[in-house]
Amino acid sequence: MSIQSINVRNQFRGKVKEIISGPVVSEIDVETPHGIVTSVVTSRSVRDLGLQVGTEVIALVKSTEVAIAKV
Amino acid sequence: MSIQSINVRNQFRGKVKEIISGPVVSEIDVETPHGIVTSVVTSRSVRDLGLQVGTEVIALVKSTEVAIAKV
Amino acid sequence: MSIQSINVRNQFRGKVKEIISGPVVSEIDVETPHGIVTSVVTSRSVRDLGLQVGTEVIALVKSTEVAIAKV
Amino acid sequence: MSIQSINVRNQFRGKVKEIISGPVVSEIDVETPHGIVTSVVTSRSVRDLGLQVGTEVIALVKSTEVAIAKV
Amino acid sequence: MSIQSINVRNQFRGKVKEIISGPVVSEIDVETPHGIVTSVVTSRSVRDLGLQVGTEVIALVKSTEVAIAKV
Amino acid sequence: MSIQSINVRNQFRGKVKEIISGPVVSEIDVETPHGIVTSVVTSRSVRDLGLQVGTEVIALVKSTEVAIAKV
Repeated sequence: MSIQSINVRNQFRGKVKEIISGPVVSEIDVETPHGIVTSVVTSRSVRDLGLQVGTEVIALVKSTEVAIAKV
Repeated sequence: MSIQSINVRNQFRGKVKEIISGPVVSEIDVETPHGIVTSVVTSRSVRDLGLQVGTEVIALVKSTEVAIAKV
Repeated sequence: MSIQSINVRNQFRGKVKEIISGPVVSEIDVETPHGIVTSVVTSRSVRDLGLQVGTEVIALVKSTEVAIAKV
Repeated sequence: MSIQSINVRNQFRGKVKEIISGPVVSEIDVETPHGIVTSVVTSRSVRDLGLQVGTEVIALVKSTEVAIAKV
Repeated sequence: MSIQSINVRNQFRGKVKEIISGPVVSEIDVETPHGIVTSVVTSRSVRDLGLQVGTEVIALVKSTEVAIAKV
Repeated sequence: MSIQSINVRNQFRGKVKEIISGPVVSEIDVETPHGIVTSVVTSRSVRDLGLQVGTEVIALVKSTEVAIAKV
């Protein structure tokens, strides 16, 4: 089902650079202009989405999940 | 307490661009070299950290919180 | 930007039944065929998406956010 | 310890349909009236709760974890 | 509905010490034997659970939500 | 990069008691005055931080991730 727009404010567009596969979850490293954004998703989703190195994706993060640190 | 390093893989360095204050939570918009990253934190944390427009911060996101969409 | 598909496994389609607005975040109650699903998003997202009572939406939840209790 | 009630607004009652076990986390697929709800929990929790195919459970999701997309 | 047990591994028992109420979400500060644990929940949940200063509660956190920092 | 302070209100200081390693994520059990706090992080982070049994750490939890149950 195609989604027109999503409330998730933080969207990082890029290409899958690396996939580390596990039996239940996999790590997806996405190369974006911000640098590498790392995601952990179910391995089933990786298969369902047909993700592989080079696939164009958006990494999405809800604002309530973002912490702030002072440097 | 100073923190030496943190497991949170996704770190976006920038400056606070805007703060929208509420009675319980506040929205912090962080200007990074590659776009705005938005965070919602408790208003108490905003006061405790002394956040204001221009403060240098890092926005942090745990990998398990990052979703992946295909474009 | 249109999204072709998303890794988020849990998707609940419905219509917005009620919006409780706050200065920073808003509660969105989505009426689905099997009950209400409640979401808290930034009020800015509510405006950006143009959400109002009756809007057709999908509520999405990452699998890592779902807890399991025994009854 | 028995819990009388919980603030988690989104509760999906159902039966465990499938468990995909890993060394650290496991995927639990719960058959509910909404369709399958998927959860990733620690494999230790699966053992502690004694979850198996057919166990009656509630899948719980905090409202702040629910994203909204327009269709 | 009474819950027999929950997969959430991190449980902090205590008494509500303070409630900061907002139109959509509220901050609940729970006094535990080893310090304050802070939670942000919907204000509707605060009313539904009948939370007030002194109420005995458990603060619960999914393991996937816990970050680790080195000191 | 050293972090001066972080908005995450819930901080549990302790020592790593056990690490259960997986190919993608690992479970870290931290012994704190509150009891054991359990975290699931990427195995890559475990290596990057050099975590091992006995390492002094802080387990951090955002307030929006804390649920409240009545006992």
